[in-house]
Amino acid sequence: MKMRMSQMVGKRLREDPKDAKTDSHKILVRGGYIRPVSAGIYSLLPVAKRIIRKIEEIIREEMNAIDGQEVLMPVVLPAELWQESGRYESVGEELLRFKDRNDKAMLLGMTHEEAVVQLVRTEVNSYKQLPIMVYQIQTKYRDEARPRAGLIRVREFTMKDAYSFHTSQESLDEYYERAHAAYEKIYRRVGLKNVVSILSNSGMMGGSISHEFMALADCGEDSIFLSPDGKSYKANREVAVSGLKFEKNVADELPMEKVATPGQKTIEEVANFLGVEAYQTGKAVFYSDAEGKKLIFVLIRGDFEVNECKLKNLLGLNEIKFATDEQIRAVGSVPGYASPIGLDQSKMILVVDHSAAGTANLVVGANEADQHYKNFNYGRDLEGGIVADVACVREGDPCPVTGEPLQFRHGIEVGNIFQLGTKYSKPMNCTYLDKDGKSQVMIMGCYGIGVGRTMATVVEESHDNYGPIWPMSIAPYQVQVCALNPDKDGVGEAAEKLSDELDKLGVEVLFDDRGEKAGSMFSDADLLGVPFRVIVSPKSLANGMVEFRLRSSRDTELIPVAEAAAILAGRVKEELAKYQD
Amino acid sequence: MKMRMSQMVGKRLREDPKDAKTDSHKILVRGGYIRPVSAGIYSLLPVAKRIIRKIEEIIREEMNAIDGQEVLMPVVLPAELWQESGRYESVGEELLRFKDRNDKAMLLGMTHEEAVVQLVRTEVNSYKQLPIMVYQIQTKYRDEARPRAGLIRVREFTMKDAYSFHTSQESLDEYYERAHAAYEKIYRRVGLKNVVSILSNSGMMGGSISHEFMALADCGEDSIFLSPDGKSYKANREVAVSGLKFEKNVADELPMEKVATPGQKTIEEVANFLGVEAYQTGKAVFYSDAEGKKLIFVLIRGDFEVNECKLKNLLGLNEIKFATDEQIRAVGSVPGYASPIGLDQSKMILVVDHSAAGTANLVVGANEADQHYKNFNYGRDLEGGIVADVACVREGDPCPVTGEPLQFRHGIEVGNIFQLGTKYSKPMNCTYLDKDGKSQVMIMGCYGIGVGRTMATVVEESHDNYGPIWPMSIAPYQVQVCALNPDKDGVGEAAEKLSDELDKLGVEVLFDDRGEKAGSMFSDADLLGVPFRVIVSPKSLANGMVEFRLRSSRDTELIPVAEAAAILAGRVKEELAKYQD
Repeated sequence: MKMRMSQMVGKRLREDPKDAKTDSHKILVRGGYIRPVSAGIYSLLPVAKRIIRKIEEIIREEMNAIDGQEVLMPVVLPAELWQESGRYESVGEELLRFKDRNDKAMLLGMTHEEAVVQLVRTEVNSYKQLPIMVYQIQTKYRDEARPRAGLIRVREFTMKDAYSFHTSQESLDEYYERAHAAYEKIYRRVGLKNVVSILSNSGMMGGSISHEFMALADCGEDSIFLSPDGKSYKANREVAVSGLKFEKNVADELPMEKVATPGQKTIEEVANFLGVEAYQTGKAVFYSDAEGKKLIFVLIRGDFEVNECKLKNLLGLNEIKFATDEQIRAVGSVPGYASPIGLDQSKMILVVDHSAAGTANLVVGANEADQHYKNFNYGRDLEGGIVADVACVREGDPCPVTGEPLQFRHGIEVGNIFQLGTKYSKPMNCTYLDKDGKSQVMIMGCYGIGVGRTMATVVEESHDNYGPIWPMSIAPYQVQVCALNPDKDGVGEAAEKLSDELDKLGVEVLFDDRGEKAGSMFSDADLLGVPFRVIVSPKSLANGMVEFRLRSSRDTELIPVAEAAAILAGRVKEELAKYQD
Repeated sequence: MKMRMSQMVGKRLREDPKDAKTDSHKILVRGGYIRPVSAGIYSLLPVAKRIIRKIEEIIREEMNAIDGQEVLMPVVLPAELWQESGRYESVGEELLRFKDRNDKAMLLGMTHEEAVVQLVRTEVNSYKQLPIMVYQIQTKYRDEARPRAGLIRVREFTMKDAYSFHTSQESLDEYYERAHAAYEKIYRRVGLKNVVSILSNSGMMGGSISHEFMALADCGEDSIFLSPDGKSYKANREVAVSGLKFEKNVADELPMEKVATPGQKTIEEVANFLGVEAYQTGKAVFYSDAEGKKLIFVLIRGDFEVNECKLKNLLGLNEIKFATDEQIRAVGSVPGYASPIGLDQSKMILVVDHSAAGTANLVVGANEADQHYKNFNYGRDLEGGIVADVACVREGDPCPVTGEPLQFRHGIEVGNIFQLGTKYSKPMNCTYLDKDGKSQVMIMGCYGIGVGRTMATVVEESHDNYGPIWPMSIAPYQVQVCALNPDKDGVGEAAEKLSDELDKLGVEVLFDDRGEKAGSMFSDADLLGVPFRVIVSPKSLANGMVEFRLRSSRDTELIPVAEAAAILAGRVKEELAKYQD
């Protein structure tokens, strides 16, 4: 097909949008790909829609290749479905709830576990039909408090969400691997080169094992720890563990003594005052549950930070918040001078991080103003509580697999896969009859990819100062034909003819027929990022040639105008083949 | 591709759904195509999703062929956009309004004029870029009070909506014709045979000229009048006019006289009592505006009904309702004995239908209990008011074009096209610079097709007692291979092999590998409506043959199993070609 740029809906802009901080946000707005309609809600202009359709088609092919069956579930769902799973209450304000005209409680789907379970429990009844996977590519809405970064974090988005159903954990494991491989293939095919799958926290989705697919990018809002080889260990900061061991020798333990530390409250102040290092101190960090009913007292070594995600997972809580000074005093402690020593543990949930439990002779608070203890030793001076890993991994901590220093990276989450187990199927009674005619609960997995976010991530990974460099597999057009001085010496006619020939050979052509000056024409072309560009100009045409260049390079090559269409069509095909597998 | 029926998600049901009245509703639920999630909200199961995708692809091709550029606008829109056009206030409860978490007023898009105008007014600024058309295929929500008939009238639906922008009415006229032709092609390609385009009322969409594409079907909720040739005149009941002429001869007018009609209130009672026919009487019908502030007094001949749509259009009102007896008495009239004679017309809007104005010597009310006038003549006994056509056309009334008796039909509206003019572009300031650099308002058209409704309409038109008969162009699969007694005499293997061969030849195959009994297998196949069916059974296979039949016929044909794949692939291609143009 051939598109004339003079008719194309979508302006290129000279200025970056004011609020844009990431490259993809700037480029997608400036290049005429997306337009904001409300905060975190965008319209896709024709060039973006073409890219999105290609991404969707790649996803669809790979989902079909792992036996996915495409369905379409509603955007608007009845609240009762989410009440069945318990998420109507447990999910926060990001779930948009409303009443319809008959005063019935409804919501906008942000994910479709409930809807798919409702579907599958009526349609699938026998072990003979399992395993199955169904998926959809569909609009979702998530009422984000702070949408940001263009298409990276939006409120309305298109997502491919897939759900598999199994009779056993083994079957799920096996399918999960196939889905994992399909995801890797999808990212290769859309041209993303730096995607890693990492262990992740399952969060509100439930289940145990899950992976996030992270495109490594400095603008990413996710934090990742990787082993130096990038393979042996990969985990989200939320769940990452280090290879650090905390094992103290009881023989080293010195007698505990109280010392005056007037006005010294922070770890830094206390350590300086007593002439010790942060790793020789113990820090008290206080949280409460969402309702503010239960105090959570964390003791961790002074050189570590509490990982709230690990803490929530440990305690099985969806939400925690920092405790108030009153809550701390209510258990008999003193803010700034707190430790669990001598406190009534029945009034709190005490968590002792491995770092604090396994290090000898720490400085800790004495629960008295201006007083600390030296030589605190867990086991001797304090017992009880939950001893666990609730510490944030630090860059350079040893990798739990190889022992080498962990590297810290930012990433954009472009997909995720979860082993849900029976989290939804059990409460929603999604069962099948096994070989013996006995009713069993199905075991589930789910698999998501954000389509628009994938497009934006390609831009983050593949652009220069002038615009995006689209991979041929998802480029809005395959070849851009630029007519330079179209009114002169038959340039317009030659360019039009070349465009038509390319079109006939099945190439997707964008024909810049506007007669703009070279500078403006080429900066527009850069913003459109079409991988192949042909320039028809009076000068080269006089020699029977046209100029060819790649979007990704500044080199040009002269090719004979008579053969240009055939040559380009061949190169497009070659280039496409690179993304086939 | 090959799909095994043993794995296919979607059950066939033996019973019709309780609430289903139309064939498509029954068939789509029984065949495992759709499942209700809430009132008027459905999930599409895999077979339906396959059909829908094919319909969407046909629509997309035809939209691209008339220079459409595909975009995607949001489902969730900010209220302020609809405030700009004035529709936030004027549209009723079917527009779902809600607040987001930041208390901002939002709505669910039920149509996208406002969103597209916002887009185009920023992207298109010069006459050089016009005309353009943009379209999307996207989810919409309309909070229907009474969803019904399965996919025919739903709350959430997928729609193709297209919008064109022009510099002149001539350009719009020309494009409107192209769109009209594209719609006719779309319906042919999806296999709908009985679609007619009719003049329609523009309703809340505004604008003047508009057409509805009606699939003629007894279950349709729209009412249509057609000339006997089906071409010369086609109009929705809401706007249909007849060729009736009402011209009275003043010489015929008899003196008006008051007659006692004790207890006779209805036209029938009065006519019987006075020994005249209904067409010799005049009937008073009372409405008020939505706020109940203004009385609308319609005088129409007793043998006609008031067409409220025509009346609203005449008066430029979005809504009218029947007046109360108090409102009638307030202008000095008497319910049951009303006429405009002697009333103060400044207290009402008086509308006299042509039938009443143009017929001599009518019996009308005397605005006194138990009293009527005989020989009322408009012009002599009453002047003023708006004389206009506000009558419903009746079956058999003469066609306004040919004079032959009009025929009455029911139809399902599967699409519509509107000339919007400047209804949205003017208030929303959607302008361009003309050749002289002067700012001008764009002229718009819009073009809609309901995708799911189109699928349901195909079922209404193409089914038998056992299920749908899908046209090859949109069939979920092209060939269904049924293995009868798959465990016997190599039947299963032969059927599997044939399925694989068909798959390799690019045929979409549904392979019934379940080993069900013939009756159950065939009734399932009937509900799936795959146009070509091949039955592999021990008996025919013993002779090296398989049975072939069409879904649309009970005849079977034996074809050699060795050549079956090639023969069938050829026939599929031939059949598909029938829908190409």
